[in-house]
Amino acid sequence: MKYVLAINFKTYKTSYGSSALKIARDADEVAKEYGDLIEVILLPPVTEILRIAGSVTHSNVFAQHVDPVDEGPYTGHVTVEMVKEAGASGVMINHSERRIRLDEISVILGRTRKLGLRTLVCADTPEVAAAVSTLTPDMLAIEPPELIGTGIPVSKARPEVVTGTVSRVRNLNREVLILTGAGITTGDDVAAAIKLGTQGVLVASAVMKAEDPGGVVREMAESITRTLV
Amino acid sequence: MKYVLAINFKTYKTSYGSSALKIARDADEVAKEYGDLIEVILLPPVTEILRIAGSVTHSNVFAQHVDPVDEGPYTGHVTVEMVKEAGASGVMINHSERRIRLDEISVILGRTRKLGLRTLVCADTPEVAAAVSTLTPDMLAIEPPELIGTGIPVSKARPEVVTGTVSRVRNLNREVLILTGAGITTGDDVAAAIKLGTQGVLVASAVMKAEDPGGVVREMAESITRTLV
Amino acid sequence: MKYVLAINFKTYKTSYGSSALKIARDADEVAKEYGDLIEVILLPPVTEILRIAGSVTHSNVFAQHVDPVDEGPYTGHVTVEMVKEAGASGVMINHSERRIRLDEISVILGRTRKLGLRTLVCADTPEVAAAVSTLTPDMLAIEPPELIGTGIPVSKARPEVVTGTVSRVRNLNREVLILTGAGITTGDDVAAAIKLGTQGVLVASAVMKAEDPGGVVREMAESITRTLV
Amino acid sequence: MKYVLAINFKTYKTSYGSSALKIARDADEVAKEYGDLIEVILLPPVTEILRIAGSVTHSNVFAQHVDPVDEGPYTGHVTVEMVKEAGASGVMINHSERRIRLDEISVILGRTRKLGLRTLVCADTPEVAAAVSTLTPDMLAIEPPELIGTGIPVSKARPEVVTGTVSRVRNLNREVLILTGAGITTGDDVAAAIKLGTQGVLVASAVMKAEDPGGVVREMAESITRTLV
Repeated sequence: MKYVLAINFKTYKTSYGSSALKIARDADEVAKEYGDLIEVILLPPVTEILRIAGSVTHSNVFAQHVDPVDEGPYTGHVTVEMVKEAGASGVMINHSERRIRLDEISVILGRTRKLGLRTLVCADTPEVAAAVSTLTPDMLAIEPPELIGTGIPVSKARPEVVTGTVSRVRNLNREVLILTGAGITTGDDVAAAIKLGTQGVLVASAVMKAEDPGGVVREMAESITRTLV
Repeated sequence: MKYVLAINFKTYKTSYGSSALKIARDADEVAKEYGDLIEVILLPPVTEILRIAGSVTHSNVFAQHVDPVDEGPYTGHVTVEMVKEAGASGVMINHSERRIRLDEISVILGRTRKLGLRTLVCADTPEVAAAVSTLTPDMLAIEPPELIGTGIPVSKARPEVVTGTVSRVRNLNREVLILTGAGITTGDDVAAAIKLGTQGVLVASAVMKAEDPGGVVREMAESITRTLV
Repeated sequence: MKYVLAINFKTYKTSYGSSALKIARDADEVAKEYGDLIEVILLPPVTEILRIAGSVTHSNVFAQHVDPVDEGPYTGHVTVEMVKEAGASGVMINHSERRIRLDEISVILGRTRKLGLRTLVCADTPEVAAAVSTLTPDMLAIEPPELIGTGIPVSKARPEVVTGTVSRVRNLNREVLILTGAGITTGDDVAAAIKLGTQGVLVASAVMKAEDPGGVVREMAESITRTLV
Repeated sequence: MKYVLAINFKTYKTSYGSSALKIARDADEVAKEYGDLIEVILLPPVTEILRIAGSVTHSNVFAQHVDPVDEGPYTGHVTVEMVKEAGASGVMINHSERRIRLDEISVILGRTRKLGLRTLVCADTPEVAAAVSTLTPDMLAIEPPELIGTGIPVSKARPEVVTGTVSRVRNLNREVLILTGAGITTGDDVAAAIKLGTQGVLVASAVMKAEDPGGVVREMAESITRTLV
């Protein structure tokens, strides 16, 4: 098992075009260096999957969202097939900024499995995380929405949410990787997340709004390494 | 003014990857030949905008949908900025398979105008088309949803919907281009749409599910030309 | 024409049960006294329409929202027929806290018209109000969402939104009553709304969260009367 | 434990007004006679909860849906408090005609628990039912959407969906009552549902569109009784 450093580009000003490409490449450098221990997952906007997936070699690219529709007459939707074709090897769903219905989560997990893509499902509470874990995604991220984007790490502000998730989920599913999200800003926050029993982090603004995004990714990777020594 | 031949790729099996690229290039050939009279608009899935916009030179590329969000923390959304960056010169919104709220239509029209993108708004009835026309999009398409994908052209099955739209809209807005959609399959259907007073067509399955998509586009373009003689 | 004093109960703690009934009866007293000049419209939660419509005689009861569905297999929806059966004589739709799609607005206006109910459609900007007015509702309310519940009246903070709505809408529809909403708190705010050219107000928290809701309604009615002298 | 006979009024023509009241009273007669063994749950539209809850004495009334909002500025929503005030002793959520998000299911279950209302959550597959069961509702109903309203009982057409639900759910939750829904039409269908290991049925059209709704309810109750002998 590798520890996961998942970077959600969201729709920040830096999330597309040349700034997105630079962030992706810098993160890919970190992925190259720390690849024995850490998996870097890049989550660019859907318009950028093709370009970014074609520009990195040590990271994996996931979509930020995908719709629960088949191929067919579904104007304006994004299918699992499409993001796979564009180069994604996985999809994230149910982020707090893009929640979906329970039946849709189940349908998308079925489709991704069939197409060989991996899955990361977000949850806002230990209860929801436990319910999600019964649907056997590859990863889940626990993110209390009220902390997202605040710079206040959940691992510090509400560690019981993280440990509660770990204990509830592990009762039901021993294999799913659990990521900590919301407010993760520094290498120390990442270390705290690992120490609370999770297998990685889901970050966004800390990287996307940083002056030196690549430096932040590197600091986080180093912190994971140190934590595991 | 040019007549518009807008091709909605939807999420058909042919809408992405190499088949999508071939359809786009074949349509672009038609755009090249008939460019004095006809504007070809390609509406690929959002994952394919970058590749297709980079591969055509005589056609315009529009997104099939865009979300009414700014740059910022909006995971899984598609902004106007992103589709512009990817190479789109316009956006379609409010298709019957992706209806949005009235306030969202207004917000998106404001954002596209600011960014210099053109707009195509779909409507299901003459009343809705008239309401949309007061928001001054560049184009609107009248599409009775019950005929979409049937191969039964609205111009034949319900011509009064098309003429009713033209008369209602023209009372309020003399500049918006009006397209006929739903069931448009053959060159004759396109000709009928022009004769009913509209300035083009919005097609999907007739091209995307055809054995020879380029041939269908060519037939439609030729039919427009003949109609205008 | 009567001036309209529309009271949106929302889902405030006072919006149901005995407190709601008392507010409705107190407002009905005002309706009785000022009935030559003012129409009081009560908008209780859907669970309370039956009880409140059965308890007032000088006011009209409208639903706060209704779904665009027919009779049939639509679990958990509220039809126009149902709210009519419960005693409503009209429906409000598209409030900023319950926006709906443009095609749904059109469908609901068609159904209410057929069933003889009146309609009040909310809009957030002059542009949206103008578009709505082409669908010929009986009333529309202009409410900039950012002022709702603030106690800062739109008539004072952004009078140009109100006058802009009046001028845009009157170009398209001379009959629709235009109500001013958002932040309306005192009799003076109501007077200002009338002076800006609208035919009434849509209020909520100023009444529902008041110590003496009936007194607030009375003050507003008196203010309208004085304004018209 | 009692077996459950839950009747979803949906928005059928008979779901409101005098026809709804008659169906409720007839079903209540059955509830009275079979009360030792069977619990009758009536799910009228939200406008009718007050009237029906006030007219029955042996049945329980549940809402067909409730919104995940608090008391406050939530125009057009239905809160748990409101349906309780109107006389409901429980709520159904996530019916296939009114699916909600996973986080909303969790929030509503928390609120209903706090207010002392019971809960019935619908699911379309054994996988979704299992996920729901970890959130500990009082009841869940398994309903393959494609059979709803067909008159083809799931217990006959796809018994493995019912037995698969029972086995998956019982691994996770030994207390939740499991109801069979979709296509349940006759007493035999109800008997089959019981024999497959579920504790009751969720019916709609078979009662609401019957010439003699009370007779159908009686037949179903009798069938449960016979099955248990």
